[in-house]
Amino acid sequence: MNRRKALENLRVVLVGTLYGGNVGSACRAMANCGVRELRLVAPDPGLTWEFAERMAVHATDILAERRTFATLAEAVADCVAVAGTSRRGGLYRRHFADSREVAPELLGLAETGPVALVFGREDKGLLNEELLLCTHVVQIPASPDYPSYNLAQSVLLLCHELYRAAAGPARNRELESSPPATADLRGRMLAKLRAYLLATGFMQEDNADHMMEGFGRVFARGVRTEADAKLVMGAVQQAGWALDAAKRRG
Amino acid sequence: MNRRKALENLRVVLVGTLYGGNVGSACRAMANCGVRELRLVAPDPGLTWEFAERMAVHATDILAERRTFATLAEAVADCVAVAGTSRRGGLYRRHFADSREVAPELLGLAETGPVALVFGREDKGLLNEELLLCTHVVQIPASPDYPSYNLAQSVLLLCHELYRAAAGPARNRELESSPPATADLRGRMLAKLRAYLLATGFMQEDNADHMMEGFGRVFARGVRTEADAKLVMGAVQQAGWALDAAKRRG
Repeated sequence: MNRRKALENLRVVLVGTLYGGNVGSACRAMANCGVRELRLVAPDPGLTWEFAERMAVHATDILAERRTFATLAEAVADCVAVAGTSRRGGLYRRHFADSREVAPELLGLAETGPVALVFGREDKGLLNEELLLCTHVVQIPASPDYPSYNLAQSVLLLCHELYRAAAGPARNRELESSPPATADLRGRMLAKLRAYLLATGFMQEDNADHMMEGFGRVFARGVRTEADAKLVMGAVQQAGWALDAAKRRG
Repeated sequence: MNRRKALENLRVVLVGTLYGGNVGSACRAMANCGVRELRLVAPDPGLTWEFAERMAVHATDILAERRTFATLAEAVADCVAVAGTSRRGGLYRRHFADSREVAPELLGLAETGPVALVFGREDKGLLNEELLLCTHVVQIPASPDYPSYNLAQSVLLLCHELYRAAAGPARNRELESSPPATADLRGRMLAKLRAYLLATGFMQEDNADHMMEGFGRVFARGVRTEADAKLVMGAVQQAGWALDAAKRRG
């Protein structure tokens, strides 16, 4: 099974959720991360489904296809791994894993069968007996000054780590639509610039090398791709032509 | 300046925000990640501050201390770097950076001065002229099926990357409150278990090696720390005593 497919084996399990808005926001966060299946364990009777609908926006299908269970044990019965989220430590919570470090392992397990990502109540989190059902206890780091994330935001942060793990390493190169500029192309660009700046009288031969160091530094930072370099070269070329034409006229 | 301090140099800038709930949720996400300063650019006149208050929960101080500006240029005038978020590509948006890859660079810049993290309108994002004010354009990867994150969740994901960058690499070891079990401790634990399982008649000398391979495998996976190993040893020891006592009585 490929890693993207493995995302479909993730089950977001919300235990005793109080607020509909959090359920809806969780659905949207799941959809943003390619996670599709929502399971609710004994949601609060006062939960407002209208808010859930509203916050799910374009992920109402996930909300509509949710499955509801009476207990966490029933909700995770078919899962090969159960990752509970908790921010509290304690005697039986020694085996905390960092959400980013554990993501590849959880994704690997999801290639073999359903994996539950379990989130507790807005006020009390997961109970000890619920954490005992977990094969992993996951902690999402936060500022000590305000360590408690909103429920839907915890769902987002963990699902995003799994999406990242499935997508593989971040890839700026793929985000760039142009290949990196070669040293040769950079050099030709700077040569064009040098000739133009001499022609404009911005610098003279005796201080040109010194001044070009500055431009070299600027473009070394700024020019990353062929497209960048060709854009600069094109502008300099045109400026040179304009200058020549003006000189001929004058 | 240390990296934690650098978080205080981050400025979350929300441009033309429509919904108060998103402003409040953004405040909470900022507080969760140790980011303190909120700047608003021309928020929608219909924005409901009551919802903002409610969603900020324990981060209402960030909301109360917000600064409001008429234009993005004014809001980021004092910033040494301006990171705009966008999910759309296009001719002048080639210099996309991945939110995770760019976080350490942005944090490094924040050690030298204020750095703006800029988020556009819920419906239209940032305008081209606003993106032209940005030194970085940041993309937060998402599922192609539903690539648009809620505004407050985009704020959370980028602030969390910066918090991670400030906190340094994820550290499961620190999360463990007990040192790793040594091979010697593991060996003594398994020897105790072997003696006990022979005493109970669960296995005999002739098949003990074979059966212990199975337990070896299980505990190799399950026993990571001294605390784990001592817990198992303690249970086996007690079971052995109980068995002896029962045999003496019988």
